[in-house]
Amino acid sequence: MRSWRATPGAGIDGLRLQEAPEPVPGPGEVLVAVRAVSLSFRELLVLRGTYVLPVKPDLVPVSDGAGEVVAVGPGVHRTRVGDRVTAGLFPSWLDGPFGPEHLPQLGGSLDGVLAELVVLPESALVPVPRHLSFAEAATLPCAAVTAWNALSGVRAGDTVVTLGTGGVSLFALQFAVLLGAEVIALTSSEDKARRLKALGAHEVLHRRPDWPAEVRFRAGRGADRVVDVAGDLSQSLRAVAVAGEVALVGFIGGEVPPLDPRLLFGSGASVRPIAVGSQAQFRAMNRAIEVGGLRPVVDREFAFEDAAEAFRYYEDEQPLGKVVITAG
Amino acid sequence: MRSWRATPGAGIDGLRLQEAPEPVPGPGEVLVAVRAVSLSFRELLVLRGTYVLPVKPDLVPVSDGAGEVVAVGPGVHRTRVGDRVTAGLFPSWLDGPFGPEHLPQLGGSLDGVLAELVVLPESALVPVPRHLSFAEAATLPCAAVTAWNALSGVRAGDTVVTLGTGGVSLFALQFAVLLGAEVIALTSSEDKARRLKALGAHEVLHRRPDWPAEVRFRAGRGADRVVDVAGDLSQSLRAVAVAGEVALVGFIGGEVPPLDPRLLFGSGASVRPIAVGSQAQFRAMNRAIEVGGLRPVVDREFAFEDAAEAFRYYEDEQPLGKVVITAG
Amino acid sequence: MRSWRATPGAGIDGLRLQEAPEPVPGPGEVLVAVRAVSLSFRELLVLRGTYVLPVKPDLVPVSDGAGEVVAVGPGVHRTRVGDRVTAGLFPSWLDGPFGPEHLPQLGGSLDGVLAELVVLPESALVPVPRHLSFAEAATLPCAAVTAWNALSGVRAGDTVVTLGTGGVSLFALQFAVLLGAEVIALTSSEDKARRLKALGAHEVLHRRPDWPAEVRFRAGRGADRVVDVAGDLSQSLRAVAVAGEVALVGFIGGEVPPLDPRLLFGSGASVRPIAVGSQAQFRAMNRAIEVGGLRPVVDREFAFEDAAEAFRYYEDEQPLGKVVITAG
Amino acid sequence: MRSWRATPGAGIDGLRLQEAPEPVPGPGEVLVAVRAVSLSFRELLVLRGTYVLPVKPDLVPVSDGAGEVVAVGPGVHRTRVGDRVTAGLFPSWLDGPFGPEHLPQLGGSLDGVLAELVVLPESALVPVPRHLSFAEAATLPCAAVTAWNALSGVRAGDTVVTLGTGGVSLFALQFAVLLGAEVIALTSSEDKARRLKALGAHEVLHRRPDWPAEVRFRAGRGADRVVDVAGDLSQSLRAVAVAGEVALVGFIGGEVPPLDPRLLFGSGASVRPIAVGSQAQFRAMNRAIEVGGLRPVVDREFAFEDAAEAFRYYEDEQPLGKVVITAG
Repeated sequence: MRSWRATPGAGIDGLRLQEAPEPVPGPGEVLVAVRAVSLSFRELLVLRGTYVLPVKPDLVPVSDGAGEVVAVGPGVHRTRVGDRVTAGLFPSWLDGPFGPEHLPQLGGSLDGVLAELVVLPESALVPVPRHLSFAEAATLPCAAVTAWNALSGVRAGDTVVTLGTGGVSLFALQFAVLLGAEVIALTSSEDKARRLKALGAHEVLHRRPDWPAEVRFRAGRGADRVVDVAGDLSQSLRAVAVAGEVALVGFIGGEVPPLDPRLLFGSGASVRPIAVGSQAQFRAMNRAIEVGGLRPVVDREFAFEDAAEAFRYYEDEQPLGKVVITAG
Repeated sequence: MRSWRATPGAGIDGLRLQEAPEPVPGPGEVLVAVRAVSLSFRELLVLRGTYVLPVKPDLVPVSDGAGEVVAVGPGVHRTRVGDRVTAGLFPSWLDGPFGPEHLPQLGGSLDGVLAELVVLPESALVPVPRHLSFAEAATLPCAAVTAWNALSGVRAGDTVVTLGTGGVSLFALQFAVLLGAEVIALTSSEDKARRLKALGAHEVLHRRPDWPAEVRFRAGRGADRVVDVAGDLSQSLRAVAVAGEVALVGFIGGEVPPLDPRLLFGSGASVRPIAVGSQAQFRAMNRAIEVGGLRPVVDREFAFEDAAEAFRYYEDEQPLGKVVITAG
Repeated sequence: MRSWRATPGAGIDGLRLQEAPEPVPGPGEVLVAVRAVSLSFRELLVLRGTYVLPVKPDLVPVSDGAGEVVAVGPGVHRTRVGDRVTAGLFPSWLDGPFGPEHLPQLGGSLDGVLAELVVLPESALVPVPRHLSFAEAATLPCAAVTAWNALSGVRAGDTVVTLGTGGVSLFALQFAVLLGAEVIALTSSEDKARRLKALGAHEVLHRRPDWPAEVRFRAGRGADRVVDVAGDLSQSLRAVAVAGEVALVGFIGGEVPPLDPRLLFGSGASVRPIAVGSQAQFRAMNRAIEVGGLRPVVDREFAFEDAAEAFRYYEDEQPLGKVVITAG
Repeated sequence: MRSWRATPGAGIDGLRLQEAPEPVPGPGEVLVAVRAVSLSFRELLVLRGTYVLPVKPDLVPVSDGAGEVVAVGPGVHRTRVGDRVTAGLFPSWLDGPFGPEHLPQLGGSLDGVLAELVVLPESALVPVPRHLSFAEAATLPCAAVTAWNALSGVRAGDTVVTLGTGGVSLFALQFAVLLGAEVIALTSSEDKARRLKALGAHEVLHRRPDWPAEVRFRAGRGADRVVDVAGDLSQSLRAVAVAGEVALVGFIGGEVPPLDPRLLFGSGASVRPIAVGSQAQFRAMNRAIEVGGLRPVVDREFAFEDAAEAFRYYEDEQPLGKVVITAG
């Protein structure tokens, strides 16, 4: 079987396609024929060697994928050959709050899924929502679970602010609509504004430096939840309501300005960092996706052989929606 | 101004329309010109003299109404003449859990709203959702708030079962859809089944004696929430999932069969009685109604003079949707 | 190694001690030298053949035990030889709400721990609190976790009612004190009343038929939480406060009177069935036990050879505290 | 009756004692004979003119007090002459989350309680715990309610870190003990360390620059909750556990260092600003205080005439415990 391998620090040019022996599932493990993987910003950081979590010196890259079970190891009882599955980015984070024991991650300290066949622990598997294709399901493990977690506690009637058109922001928009929340989406492009409207945003605002004032003009008390993917807390804290929450998803750009703690105190709102989510959150999210008939936004699909090209496209083009690499 | 009055125990025939002096709002109070009221099953019980909570010997009946502020008393600062308002059934239940101190209720131990003018404490007022008419808003205080409370804790992707086509059940169906839940609605009429589908039910099942088995056939683990308006807990507990909840809304019919506590234990699900909700819940519900553009189902409207006829229609016809009496 | 075996339906007389080959831990499994086990009422039901959950036709009985790790199988990384451990009654219930997939249980559908050596999945293990002996730790898996779960959501200042002096009730009393709650304990013996006071009960009331009235006399609004181990919900619902909760732990006696659902509705309180708890709850409980220095109440210890005598003592004597069988 | 008055910006020297006409309670209001008031850091900021919230140009200072009801206005039904009461710092914040409508505050935008008689809305009153003196009860409204709110969600077995010996920190220590949590208290004085131990701290650490490392050495995963009264979030975020929380109480000193948002993200912990609490939280706290028999720490009492001296003592001496001014 074929597998892509990466060397952290070597960038996209370091990616190489090679033959590998077919892996054998051990006790409690499952062999999955990967049908699609999707790219997240973390993959670029892994290749650049700047990812914040531990990474193997030589690895099968990419955390997110979906496929079909082709064999099961001893002691596997709940999973059957033919099951359509995906897997949590942190395979050992089953439920409850995150802890240091859950740090091992696919496509980081563990091999990832950019291969024709992968072995995964049965406990890490999550069934694919019935109405989704493998390509669509492959977009879920990182971006969708992060967005779902970022919205935890949001109630129907709340106001949610999303920033831009990255993977997490699009899922946050779609989930917030599903939850009955009012969505104010921010973008700096008129073309993207139309796309955000079509996905269900109740209001799309231009992302000018004073966007928090615009949000307050629209939402009165401020937003109940801001899904902050930029890390510019000073802005988000000006837009959020007293007793609201800023979900801090991470930092796409490198540098973020320092924060005056008095601004945080004065906002009266909490800041909660989000690092993906547990398998239990993933399963709960999938139930919501099935009931709501939600379809992830896929920007473009590449063939397995063209994985390096897919990475370059993802890096250069700022796609609206996920970039997917299909296999099998 | 004109006002209807009732004598508990005298039934609908005891209703009488009479002239009364225009009331004057005291400190912290507001004078409201009532534009519409709606009927709930509790009103029939009040007239029959069989209501479970204390009722005045002679009272202005009906708890639910909506209208326009026409004067404010001293010390009223947040409410203005012209505001479109409704009021909580328990006017002193502002927030938090219910307590014995919140028992006084409109159209029961306190005069109700079936009058052209009523005086209410400012703290009891709740703004009317912007997109609703007075007739629509008048349906909210009892049935909608009860349904909203019955669904508290429901998450997107959960399965919710509603029983029949009473006011609470219709709102529960509509709210569950708004929250992203899957709704299985039960009814014994094919015509009503079509109406429930049109309101958004994902599945409508025939309400046969073995309906819990039907629900389990459809929902696997059982329903995450059953909104039980019949009080037949034995059935609801057979349909609910382990760790789910039966929201026990009350008893429309008189007699309910006794319950074997072992059935409750064996279900693994909680039972939670629902008695309307607080003003804070009412306001949160209204935000969800506004964002979702939800419109209450109004079966028929009657003129103020025809209030007794409206009661008779409500009692005899099992309407699908609320019966409203308009004024002004 | 020696192991006790039981035949459901054969009663205590069916218990037999026999030699068995030393078990070998497979992948993800651990070999534990059992140092102590404790008896719960479920063990009697298992022996009588009247237990509500599935039981093997021939089994190693008893769910609760504590011991020392003596060997680990392949793929076991977090557990070391010498670790002092106990295990959850439902070994596969790691976290989150209970589901049908968690039904397999020690000393029921799975072999239990009344043996000198047992093999357990590593994921089922829970470390023994540092200050507890093996005998004390062996009392925790069923009774203590059940009591802990029954008190979930109780806040400092709440009023908690406990019934009698069974294992769950004693732990509920001790945990409620630990949580800063006020404890009203009920018993029908003066001698036991003194013991309950010594364990921290703020008030001990005589368990007369009108005990709910006594609780209301003492606690005003009623109890915020009643830990009902008798299944007589009609009494508990008269003692509980509006918006409070009855935690329904199970039924020690055989017959329970039927319940009028109107009493449940009128109480305004929820009823929640309790079936032990997850490993995550077990671990959280142990942290509280360590910080509070809580010591379980052990009534009497028996030698491994005298296990049948221990069962008879437990059945006949209504001990105050747990009956423990030590090994090794 | 006599009343102290203050001019923001004029400092302690601007305090003046003067005669005033006896106030008369209006509708819904109550006349309280103040028996004791206590000082918080906010009072110094009000006098200095640097308080962050709006302040009257000339006011009766001090938010915290306790006294006895001596008269009630029309429409007051639940309060009786002779009741021992205190009041919430934000009188209109009854329950639920804080909102802009709750901003009016005693001793700030509203007159405070450093007077022999004050008029308060009945809804702002909170009964004094039975076992507390007026002096002790006067310490509760600001510091204790803040500490209680800062600990909301803490469970038995959690680890709580408190900083120093200010009013909020002492209450946080005492409440955390009451809740069954493990308390690690930080101080830079050996003498104070002894006092903190005596109040129940499980561990007292020296407040060196690397105190977060000390906390991690002691608590392994870090603290589940840090009650940060210094505003130096960079330190608190190094001490807190993943999925834990830093309760940000405010800033005693003027300047706080800026925060790198990446540190917040990397901690995996939430930051939640605390601004006192609602009357509902105040009442819940008082129930816990009564059950636990908690006694606030009073450092020193001054006579009503010596109020200015009390302020100077509070400003200069860094007392361990609250400074109280008694009246009547």
